[in-house]
Amino acid sequence: MYGRYTQDLGTFAKDEAARLRLQEGDTARPRRPSELLEYSQGRCAPCRVCALQCQRFLISKVGEDWVFLILLGLVMALVSWAMDFAIATCLQAQKWMYGGLDTNVLLQYMAWVTYPTVLITFSAGFTQILAPQAVGSGIPEMKTILRGVVLKEYLTLKTFVAKVIGLTCALGSGMPLGKEGPFVHIASMCAALLSRFLSLFGGFYENEARNIEMLAAACAVGVGCCFAAPIGGVLFSIEVTSTFFAVRNYWRGFFAATFSAFIFRVLAVWNKDEETITALFKTRFRLDFPFDLQELPAFAVIGIASGFGGALFVYLNRKIVQFMRRQKTINRFLMKKRLLFPALVTLIISTLTFPPGFGQFMAGQLTQKDTLVTLFDNQTWAKQGINDEFEYLGILEAWLHPRSNVFVTLVVFILMKFWMSALATTIPVPCGAFMPVFVIGAAFGRLVGESMAAWFPDGIHTDSNIYRIVPGGYAVVGAAALSGAVTHTVSTAVIVFELTGQISHILPVMIAVILANAVAQSLQPSLYDSIIRIKKLPYLPELGWGHQEKYNVRVEDIMVRDIRYVTLNCKYRDLQQVLHSTKMKNLPLVESAESMILLGSIERTQVGALLSNQLSPQRRLLTLRQKVLSEDGHRLSDSSIRFQISTETSSGTPARPALRKPLKPALKRVSSSPADSPPAGSTDHTGIALKSLFCANATTEPTEAQGTAYHKAKRVRISIVEEMILGDKMTPAEILEWEEQQLDQPVDFSSAKIDPAPFQLVEHTSLHKTHTIFSLLGLDHAFVTSIGRLVGMVSLKELRKAIEGSLTGKGVKVRPPLASFRDSTASTTEADTTALHQLWDRHQHHHMPREAGPGGDDDDDTTKGQ
Amino acid sequence: MYGRYTQDLGTFAKDEAARLRLQEGDTARPRRPSELLEYSQGRCAPCRVCALQCQRFLISKVGEDWVFLILLGLVMALVSWAMDFAIATCLQAQKWMYGGLDTNVLLQYMAWVTYPTVLITFSAGFTQILAPQAVGSGIPEMKTILRGVVLKEYLTLKTFVAKVIGLTCALGSGMPLGKEGPFVHIASMCAALLSRFLSLFGGFYENEARNIEMLAAACAVGVGCCFAAPIGGVLFSIEVTSTFFAVRNYWRGFFAATFSAFIFRVLAVWNKDEETITALFKTRFRLDFPFDLQELPAFAVIGIASGFGGALFVYLNRKIVQFMRRQKTINRFLMKKRLLFPALVTLIISTLTFPPGFGQFMAGQLTQKDTLVTLFDNQTWAKQGINDEFEYLGILEAWLHPRSNVFVTLVVFILMKFWMSALATTIPVPCGAFMPVFVIGAAFGRLVGESMAAWFPDGIHTDSNIYRIVPGGYAVVGAAALSGAVTHTVSTAVIVFELTGQISHILPVMIAVILANAVAQSLQPSLYDSIIRIKKLPYLPELGWGHQEKYNVRVEDIMVRDIRYVTLNCKYRDLQQVLHSTKMKNLPLVESAESMILLGSIERTQVGALLSNQLSPQRRLLTLRQKVLSEDGHRLSDSSIRFQISTETSSGTPARPALRKPLKPALKRVSSSPADSPPAGSTDHTGIALKSLFCANATTEPTEAQGTAYHKAKRVRISIVEEMILGDKMTPAEILEWEEQQLDQPVDFSSAKIDPAPFQLVEHTSLHKTHTIFSLLGLDHAFVTSIGRLVGMVSLKELRKAIEGSLTGKGVKVRPPLASFRDSTASTTEADTTALHQLWDRHQHHHMPREAGPGGDDDDDTTKGQ
Repeated sequence: MYGRYTQDLGTFAKDEAARLRLQEGDTARPRRPSELLEYSQGRCAPCRVCALQCQRFLISKVGEDWVFLILLGLVMALVSWAMDFAIATCLQAQKWMYGGLDTNVLLQYMAWVTYPTVLITFSAGFTQILAPQAVGSGIPEMKTILRGVVLKEYLTLKTFVAKVIGLTCALGSGMPLGKEGPFVHIASMCAALLSRFLSLFGGFYENEARNIEMLAAACAVGVGCCFAAPIGGVLFSIEVTSTFFAVRNYWRGFFAATFSAFIFRVLAVWNKDEETITALFKTRFRLDFPFDLQELPAFAVIGIASGFGGALFVYLNRKIVQFMRRQKTINRFLMKKRLLFPALVTLIISTLTFPPGFGQFMAGQLTQKDTLVTLFDNQTWAKQGINDEFEYLGILEAWLHPRSNVFVTLVVFILMKFWMSALATTIPVPCGAFMPVFVIGAAFGRLVGESMAAWFPDGIHTDSNIYRIVPGGYAVVGAAALSGAVTHTVSTAVIVFELTGQISHILPVMIAVILANAVAQSLQPSLYDSIIRIKKLPYLPELGWGHQEKYNVRVEDIMVRDIRYVTLNCKYRDLQQVLHSTKMKNLPLVESAESMILLGSIERTQVGALLSNQLSPQRRLLTLRQKVLSEDGHRLSDSSIRFQISTETSSGTPARPALRKPLKPALKRVSSSPADSPPAGSTDHTGIALKSLFCANATTEPTEAQGTAYHKAKRVRISIVEEMILGDKMTPAEILEWEEQQLDQPVDFSSAKIDPAPFQLVEHTSLHKTHTIFSLLGLDHAFVTSIGRLVGMVSLKELRKAIEGSLTGKGVKVRPPLASFRDSTASTTEADTTALHQLWDRHQHHHMPREAGPGGDDDDDTTKGQ
Repeated sequence: MYGRYTQDLGTFAKDEAARLRLQEGDTARPRRPSELLEYSQGRCAPCRVCALQCQRFLISKVGEDWVFLILLGLVMALVSWAMDFAIATCLQAQKWMYGGLDTNVLLQYMAWVTYPTVLITFSAGFTQILAPQAVGSGIPEMKTILRGVVLKEYLTLKTFVAKVIGLTCALGSGMPLGKEGPFVHIASMCAALLSRFLSLFGGFYENEARNIEMLAAACAVGVGCCFAAPIGGVLFSIEVTSTFFAVRNYWRGFFAATFSAFIFRVLAVWNKDEETITALFKTRFRLDFPFDLQELPAFAVIGIASGFGGALFVYLNRKIVQFMRRQKTINRFLMKKRLLFPALVTLIISTLTFPPGFGQFMAGQLTQKDTLVTLFDNQTWAKQGINDEFEYLGILEAWLHPRSNVFVTLVVFILMKFWMSALATTIPVPCGAFMPVFVIGAAFGRLVGESMAAWFPDGIHTDSNIYRIVPGGYAVVGAAALSGAVTHTVSTAVIVFELTGQISHILPVMIAVILANAVAQSLQPSLYDSIIRIKKLPYLPELGWGHQEKYNVRVEDIMVRDIRYVTLNCKYRDLQQVLHSTKMKNLPLVESAESMILLGSIERTQVGALLSNQLSPQRRLLTLRQKVLSEDGHRLSDSSIRFQISTETSSGTPARPALRKPLKPALKRVSSSPADSPPAGSTDHTGIALKSLFCANATTEPTEAQGTAYHKAKRVRISIVEEMILGDKMTPAEILEWEEQQLDQPVDFSSAKIDPAPFQLVEHTSLHKTHTIFSLLGLDHAFVTSIGRLVGMVSLKELRKAIEGSLTGKGVKVRPPLASFRDSTASTTEADTTALHQLWDRHQHHHMPREAGPGGDDDDDTTKGQ
């Protein structure tokens, strides 16, 4: 189980490489003392020895976790700070342009609109050209990657550059976009690149498990250094990316995120932006009486409303994407002019926010950061706003329109920003939706808070002291609740505490966040899950709250019973048939069709390799030559020995490529090292029958179908073969005949890589447990066995179908027609004992022939059980 | 795999029970409409229908998660609040007594000393008598239980009562003890009891997985309502109790802990203790400039020193326990007078804290809560203490001894409390160590803070503004760091934020906590792990940071190769031999000694049952009678049919006991339902040979060795047998002979319960991955297979040894002599293919005899690989 063969091969190759290097070291080391002895005659000998030792010590330390984490934190803090600086400059440039042209409204409008349009268009074009993978949030992809799936090109330098520059431009435009999601992706790429870089010094960065752990830490760093919120960052990244979390990683995440947040804030202090390290959006609510107990219903209302709002946001976002895709005319047009859509959206949004125009009713001139600062402000706008005892923030005036009401402004702001954000996040630039949603939530909270303040001008508390209502506190609650509802997380609560630097509203925030989550989770998937579905990434849906029926659905109800398998004593023709008839990536290897005892699983590529090896022209020529030679009567034994040797040496070679590319294979699941770089022209030599076989479905995965073992064996043997190829004088008819002959031979599995213990489930395993195991171990398929006998298979697909089916149809859909009948008889235990009994009988009577065939076998089983 | 048969049997039984109940319902339901029809002639018919529907609706809701979580939160909040109230009353009573007797120092001393001694002695005696399991923290036990191990009597009502009352008395005595750990235990017991209670209404509380999830949530509730810290509670409970955490549970924890904390604080408001909901130990540090960047080194120093201190505390605590155990004279004396040790320790500690005595130099008169309030105080004691511009808290004077220095008081306090706490937590009463450590940490932080304040009286900042140093902030940092170091958690940081209601010191706290953890983790295990080791609970040590060698040790290096197994075609004599030769609880079932193909695993109890069944006097008498009857020539076929039927009915019976005891089996791993209550006198009927077998090691587990299937079959058959037993006229010699005959028969496995897919690993699986899988799935053993063939076994023991061995010996110890040799040849891949090849060969040649035996097989394998 789980100890995949390919993986083990990878580790083996790495170990081998390490050993070889060690041996090199051993042969090199004896020289060193003598070198040193020579030097020791000189004066600086001790220094040199010391320097050498230091160097060696440092290199040995480079491999340690904490060095990596510190470096990661440092780099990410620098990136975050530099990006913030660049974004701030961009936004200031816009403001300056807008402010400088205040004589002419038209010019002002042109400047206000053109600037973001150009930036967004550039961002979209740049990412499109350099790395289309950089588009969007990145959290859905990271979730999938941490689940163990390989997404190509998602963690490369190119994507990193595209994402950083694209994100800076996109945020610099002032559109309602966020940086949190992309930062998770950026941090992960940074970790991947860093790990690749550090592996130049030490060999420790080549382990798959470790890389996944580091990626998990990187996600925490991403959120942590984006908001200077280490704790919230760790928790948010856990909630968003993981199903099961190792407490080990939690540690790494905390360490790196704290360091990163620290450096991020220290940079601000050194840059004289701040006097000391404080929160990003510092609030100054009173500490002694933050809120009254009787205000709690209002907070609960915020939570519930945010839940509905969050679900609506996710729904709206998805509908916009789906609408753009479905409308074929729009779609075709947009596919041609890829940059038109971003430009158009930006144009609309920036037109609406133009301050002298409609923007005056929705505080359009404020940047996202200014908006948040004003919303979290301590004062009450509605009533006490007239009092001049408070000194106003200058930017606060944006909310107080002379001819309008604060409430109207807030309502307009919320409504406009809501659809704007939902629309803007569909633009194909690197962007997140967390911050926009956070702002909308804050505005909504402020609205409720202002209403409360207007309703109870002297506070609710009836005792001697008058404690006025603090609308800023409501804004904090609203921000946490809405962002929690959209992302389906509770850790937004922690993020707001860290962002505002105050934890006094902990209970209202927690209550609102939990209510918002409860509502939103029952209505819609989270934004990230929604994107995962839209992008059709391989995922496993969560089991929701209280779906008790999950405990009653069993694997036998959802498994695929009619699966293809490979038997130990099969012929090559059978292999061919199996490859034709199924698209499964892993084929079960059973002892025989009668016993069906599962021995292991063999990859599809391996089966292909076995076949192609059997039908390879080299082999054909070899037999041809042997036939010729046997007429001569000599050299036959010699060549067969050479063949043997060449196979053995070939099994040692994969070490090198694995060493050179330490990260990629570590992040790859399916088919590791040697198949990565097939030698050019390797596909040319396959036989006709094989070609006809692959033509059926080879167009989709031509390199994958070409097997690992095949290349390996071939690369070495090619030198022997080269001379033979000249003697290929067989006609196509002869070749076909020869291939037909070959197909009738029994398969020799000795050269194939077999996973000796694929993951197994039992028929009675509950869906709940299956889900847990699949999530825990990141499986994509598992075989179902009954006392060693293969009876079926469950893959992610079936599991997903079962969960989603029962989520909508309440557990009815997934049960096959016979399930209810089966339930009503005391069958299950009996079935097993019967099956065992049969096996035992069979054993006793020395392989008595039974009704063969896997399908028949299974049916037989279930019917007998009843 | 992992779908344990026993477990599945349990679920099956439950399903069966549910079905039966449903059937009952079905048969009962048809009546109801007619009943209602009768009523419908009356007037209140609609009301009744409505009431019935309401009732049904309510009952259906009772089963849902959130109802359970709300109830749990509510109950725990009430318990916590009531306990706090009782403790406060106790402490006030002591203060009142001490205050009232201020005329006579001797009387005062007597009162001061006697009161806690009586309380502690009562607490120790009470828990000793009612439930000794209630002693101590409870977190180590919960960790073990959540790992999947069954600890008897740990979650019962008796223990609950003992723990609540014992803890109240212990804390009421004013000893340096905490309530956090016990609260985790109390909450878990509460969850277990609640789940048992609610299962009276609905059938949903009978699932093992769900119970574990609920226990995890309960742990969070425990911490959450103890400190009114929901977020910190969830995180702390995750860090302390889990290795892998399901994000699903995180949710449940948050929900329940928030609700609990909310109610806990609302109760305080309703009781007029507080004006509104605020933090437990509210601080009022300034928000705009909480600390200077240049103070960070001081915070780092606190962190590192706390790390050493924490490790020392754990070491001291363990040494005290070990000393008490090793000293045989002391031990024997204490065993006799169990209450003497608690009384003695209390006497010593309370004597030293006597305020007019030595206590005046260590603020002895302050309770734990007062101490914390003063330590977190805003003012500086050392310099500005003379200024009268600040209004003092009255209790603050305890620290300012007229003839002494604040620094001296603090140092004395820290030193004395350190050993006192380490000693006090070894008293056999329900108590935790978190709070005492927290207080010591706060004092240490305060000490550093006061020193800094004395050193830089006007603050470090050199700019225009003068920001004085806030020693209270240092106290917060110190408290988080030391408690983090002792428990090896970082979430203490979150707990202090929630406790103090201020998050402004987030970065210093995080830095100090991380440093403290780094130091402490490299020196000592956590306090809880230390207790786990002392109590010898079944546990799996964590893999530490950066143990790269873990990735290189493989399962083949640590597995047990020489394991006993059961073959499909074995004789009863073989079973007997296997039972004699091994103590393994699960025996692998292989196809044959030649093929060694793993078919499943069979429990030891099952094997015992098979044997006892074969040798049972009933069977003997049956054969005897059959022999007699066959002479008559009839009824033979009839009785064999009846036998068959009786076995079938018996497989349906376990439903009932599983239904009646919903919680226990759910928490049990090994051997579920039917063996729980063996019918009286069932051990009497076993045969002589069997008795001799069990005499070898039956003293340790007599009921366990008596098998499940045996009882089941017997309970039904006993009626048939009763009449036969009268005819037992065989002499012992005859019986022996008959038994010998029986032993030579091949085993009939049809009645045995077999786990059809035990967990399998591959030889090359790394130790790191093995550890992960064991922790993830909560395994206690796994079989090692190579292409379906059993080659070894790994249990928790081997794994633990390997991890601990390599922790001390750096990976050298665990490698067997041949490992290095094996490494230096390209063996592994070859070995596998060779083994497969052999299997294939064997298959081709139709079971050619091979060199048999499992040990020989393995050696063969490795040598061939070289």
